[in-house]
Amino acid sequence: MTTPSRVTVVEVGPRDGLQNEHVLLPAVEKAAYVDLLSAAGMPVIEVAAFVSPKRVPQMADADEVLARITPRPGVRYSALVPNMLGLERARAAGVQEIAVFAAASETFSERNINQRIDASLAGYAQVCAAAHTAGIRVRGYLSTSFGCPYEGDIPVARVLEISRQLLDFGVFEASISDTIGVAHPGQLRRTLDALLPRIPVSQVALHFHDTRGTALANVLAALEYGVATFDASAGGLGGCPFAPGAAGNLATEDLLYMLHGLDIETGASLEGVLAASTFMESRLDHPLPSRVYRAARATRLRST
Amino acid sequence: MTTPSRVTVVEVGPRDGLQNEHVLLPAVEKAAYVDLLSAAGMPVIEVAAFVSPKRVPQMADADEVLARITPRPGVRYSALVPNMLGLERARAAGVQEIAVFAAASETFSERNINQRIDASLAGYAQVCAAAHTAGIRVRGYLSTSFGCPYEGDIPVARVLEISRQLLDFGVFEASISDTIGVAHPGQLRRTLDALLPRIPVSQVALHFHDTRGTALANVLAALEYGVATFDASAGGLGGCPFAPGAAGNLATEDLLYMLHGLDIETGASLEGVLAASTFMESRLDHPLPSRVYRAARATRLRST
Repeated sequence: MTTPSRVTVVEVGPRDGLQNEHVLLPAVEKAAYVDLLSAAGMPVIEVAAFVSPKRVPQMADADEVLARITPRPGVRYSALVPNMLGLERARAAGVQEIAVFAAASETFSERNINQRIDASLAGYAQVCAAAHTAGIRVRGYLSTSFGCPYEGDIPVARVLEISRQLLDFGVFEASISDTIGVAHPGQLRRTLDALLPRIPVSQVALHFHDTRGTALANVLAALEYGVATFDASAGGLGGCPFAPGAAGNLATEDLLYMLHGLDIETGASLEGVLAASTFMESRLDHPLPSRVYRAARATRLRST
Repeated sequence: MTTPSRVTVVEVGPRDGLQNEHVLLPAVEKAAYVDLLSAAGMPVIEVAAFVSPKRVPQMADADEVLARITPRPGVRYSALVPNMLGLERARAAGVQEIAVFAAASETFSERNINQRIDASLAGYAQVCAAAHTAGIRVRGYLSTSFGCPYEGDIPVARVLEISRQLLDFGVFEASISDTIGVAHPGQLRRTLDALLPRIPVSQVALHFHDTRGTALANVLAALEYGVATFDASAGGLGGCPFAPGAAGNLATEDLLYMLHGLDIETGASLEGVLAASTFMESRLDHPLPSRVYRAARATRLRST
């Protein structure tokens, strides 16, 4: 258990963040946003989701967004894919990395993707096999790993079991996700104590939402276990400080501020991410919630 | 360096929180607020400040607030005192514990209390001596210990030197304060590495503002050094999510959520503090920023 000297921050703002924004943006602006994030040095960017346009209108033009970005050498661009149809669209768009999205809570799985967990896993096994045949890498999300809005507590044995299944399908890493932002460092340690004897730490990513302000403390606790991959969303996109309880992903800026303060390398530029967030905030109807972004804005306003 | 099994949370909402609110509340409401916080089990409450009413109008009726609270046995009620005049008022109000407020940054000291650090310390030496003669305990704040809005970085040697001086005056603990909310766990560890060889950990408290979202991560890092006293403000009072950059103290609710999740005893009830914040929010002109408070409110709204 040594703190890593380098961490990979997976930027999920364009997908997990934007899909929760009701202001629909044109593909050209979403692509410009992705290009700002790659220019900021983000090593992995989840660009879009090939999901039902009816259910997630913001992702309807995923193909066009992917076509319009200017790929930056060395940056991994990925897309969320729920099924074989999504995989076909991702292939056609030239995507070399996809993500599938399983749940640790039966009720959440049924309400979110309209499938029981077993059925969804059977589908993902097929998607993974086809993707690997096509030379496409697959990442696995495991949502509601720390709690479910319907079921409450989720047994950590269940999280381990489904993570293992995803890894057995050949996903290169499992992103253990706190969908509703309830995790605290005590629970996180118990979860990692259960997971890490059975899953290599290099295959574990963590995905926090900052609903209760604990996301950075969770990251700090996880670093001590050697976890070196964390998902984050520029500006905390997807949440809004004006809407009660609508807290978004852990903000990329807040994460970089802490990681860089710990002398952990990320390859990313905080200033660059702030610029991407400034662009995005100008396109939306509410302020972005990232604390570091808001503090930087306030400092800038005072000095002008 | 063992994580403490019990932590003392010093509730500073009625003073450090309210003094930054421009809506002036009547003394009876401020006293009711303090009584809600003591009913919630907060062991220490900083009730008011005996400072210039011109500079801090919200604290003008400190005497009346103290007279109107219903003291709860075992709860420590304290007041901030800047000088001998303040001490006289605190004595007359029957206060048994006071706090003095030094700064680690020369420029901040001059702008905030209009005195150079040395002059302020000379005054506090006098206040401490007189307080102790009167049987009044004294706590010492050391503001801008992690950074100054005017000077930037503050040498940790300076923080150590002034903390030691305060302790030499007989203060029972030094609250090392991140006035502008810039501290991250890396800096915190460096600070504690420098302080703890010269100051008993039992005499160290930490006071964070959550301007950059790092407050809970800092607490987590400090717990590993054995620090067992943290200041917090119910609801994150004093900050506002609507005002860019106006982040308040670490919210008591957020702190209790994490500490209780770590099985650390506080004696306080999260539900009780939420009730105090609900009361206070109804008296103010903006939502309180505590993440846990906002999440609890949102959940309650959804279930009704």
